[in-house]
Amino acid sequence: MKFATLQDHTLDGRLLIVSRDLTCCVEAGVLAPTLLYAVQHWEELEAGLRRCYDALNAGQLASQPFDPRRCAAPLPRSPQWCDGSAFLNHANLMEKAFGTAPIPDLATIPLMYQGASDDFLGPHDDVPLPSEADGIDFEGEFGVIVANVPMGVDADRALDCVRLVVQLNDWSLRAMGPREMRTGFGFLQAKPSTSFAPVAVTPDELGSGWSDGRVHLQLEVTWNEAPFGQPNGGEMSFGFGDLIAHAARTRRLRAGAIIGTGTVSNASRAAGSACIAERRVIEVIDHGAPRTGFMRFGDRVRMEARWPGAGAGPFGIIEQTVVCAQAPA
Amino acid sequence: MKFATLQDHTLDGRLLIVSRDLTCCVEAGVLAPTLLYAVQHWEELEAGLRRCYDALNAGQLASQPFDPRRCAAPLPRSPQWCDGSAFLNHANLMEKAFGTAPIPDLATIPLMYQGASDDFLGPHDDVPLPSEADGIDFEGEFGVIVANVPMGVDADRALDCVRLVVQLNDWSLRAMGPREMRTGFGFLQAKPSTSFAPVAVTPDELGSGWSDGRVHLQLEVTWNEAPFGQPNGGEMSFGFGDLIAHAARTRRLRAGAIIGTGTVSNASRAAGSACIAERRVIEVIDHGAPRTGFMRFGDRVRMEARWPGAGAGPFGIIEQTVVCAQAPA
Repeated sequence: MKFATLQDHTLDGRLLIVSRDLTCCVEAGVLAPTLLYAVQHWEELEAGLRRCYDALNAGQLASQPFDPRRCAAPLPRSPQWCDGSAFLNHANLMEKAFGTAPIPDLATIPLMYQGASDDFLGPHDDVPLPSEADGIDFEGEFGVIVANVPMGVDADRALDCVRLVVQLNDWSLRAMGPREMRTGFGFLQAKPSTSFAPVAVTPDELGSGWSDGRVHLQLEVTWNEAPFGQPNGGEMSFGFGDLIAHAARTRRLRAGAIIGTGTVSNASRAAGSACIAERRVIEVIDHGAPRTGFMRFGDRVRMEARWPGAGAGPFGIIEQTVVCAQAPA
Repeated sequence: MKFATLQDHTLDGRLLIVSRDLTCCVEAGVLAPTLLYAVQHWEELEAGLRRCYDALNAGQLASQPFDPRRCAAPLPRSPQWCDGSAFLNHANLMEKAFGTAPIPDLATIPLMYQGASDDFLGPHDDVPLPSEADGIDFEGEFGVIVANVPMGVDADRALDCVRLVVQLNDWSLRAMGPREMRTGFGFLQAKPSTSFAPVAVTPDELGSGWSDGRVHLQLEVTWNEAPFGQPNGGEMSFGFGDLIAHAARTRRLRAGAIIGTGTVSNASRAAGSACIAERRVIEVIDHGAPRTGFMRFGDRVRMEARWPGAGAGPFGIIEQTVVCAQAPA
């Protein structure tokens, strides 16, 4: 199944069921008012939602065209947002970039930070940020939306808690990152609101693109229309089962919590990068200094996950412009 | 005004308006179903809630006895939970305790971590945790519940966004803290669900106990009925205005977000401590090694904020028992 959320300026928006080819949709309405509600009541609602999805794909419903420009994030707010750093290629490079002390247990215990989850951005929303001097960067990622997860779940059972797969941009402010890391308290100002592609999909929609708790799609990133990277999500060093179990080691996760992969990153240089910071540290390695600057107001970033060599991706497209935030009135 | 939330096993519970002396209450019902709703619609609802509160205090309403044992946290879930470390006396001691590198800008930029906000515990809920080996500790704190806060707000205006003041226990697992700090990604497993005293109060209820964006009450902590500390909240090195502005530097905060002080801590040794870790580091300083162990299953902690020398405090009491979490089925 494929879902999106109509932006109606409420906290949770309105649930849309989207056709497999992303051309049309219907409001889920009485079946489930919001995607958060659907995830919270999945066992009761799944069969009805699937009947509706099947009828939509068969052309049996009075549908409307699907317009991702009217979409919020699939979950405009979520109970938790915990973002891993599950691609060790990226983590190893970033350690060099930040000049911070070696991270303990990097290869055996997932890195994960707690993010804000009250104010996600939609796929075409402008991204208001206070200053170009903050080192504005994108991070292309995948994520999963989970069911209720019990404390202490193991990785295998954790994977059974995955309800939906999403594609996201974990906006980052690099000028703040190293200082916040050195405090030991982790990222806060370095992580403004996260953005999401319009469509959340059940894992079965990914076919062979979902296996081993990993999304085996390539994430195509362009910055101001120039290709920047197309790393494949299959290279995750930890799978989503490991990441969910890590997050739930000492707490329950409530239905709708989102767990992210961290920046998609491949060992092959030919794959490019899904964030500027990674390209910069490669430039430092190759040339002794970074050559690429961070984003400026007016810059655009586009992200789309696709099967290699195939057509449109399952999640739709993130395409956003960074703008200067207005000072508070 | 004073508010509490009846635990009814929904995500947000049901709003209670509580009398000033905490003896009786009425369900807010049609005025506002939940405290989260009240905070989200404060401008429209405040006058009506205050009329009801005044009538309750005047004995003009058919009220019921107030039973804190039936209460959830005032906000069982909240949009964000950002916890500072605003008592430098504590931060300086903990730096020694954790043996981590010196924290940069400690005296000028507030320390703050992002916590989970989807699953808060009520004042008398048992606290299920997976293992005594994790170094189970309490942290007695104050916090504020805010209105919508714009990105980039300054500290003075931030203070105007305070809607309610709360008292809380930021449960901590000390065995995980130093490792998570060294990763730079901050606390995740080290911070299980946070607990709250039953009653959230508007700042005016604190009288002279609310000034300079600080709560000038002493927080009386007992562990297994033995006095442990009674530090005063007035010694905050950063006020709530500073903490809110720090949290909102690169993001909006949605109405209902909670900002915490971190462990209340006083320079005077006579005040004792509001967490075990702080007592342990004082023991290391005095005796070369810690003498106090962390909590065991079955241990009880009680916290109540009071005016020095006066009777019952404004927030009610947190009184909880730590229990062994059941393994997931």
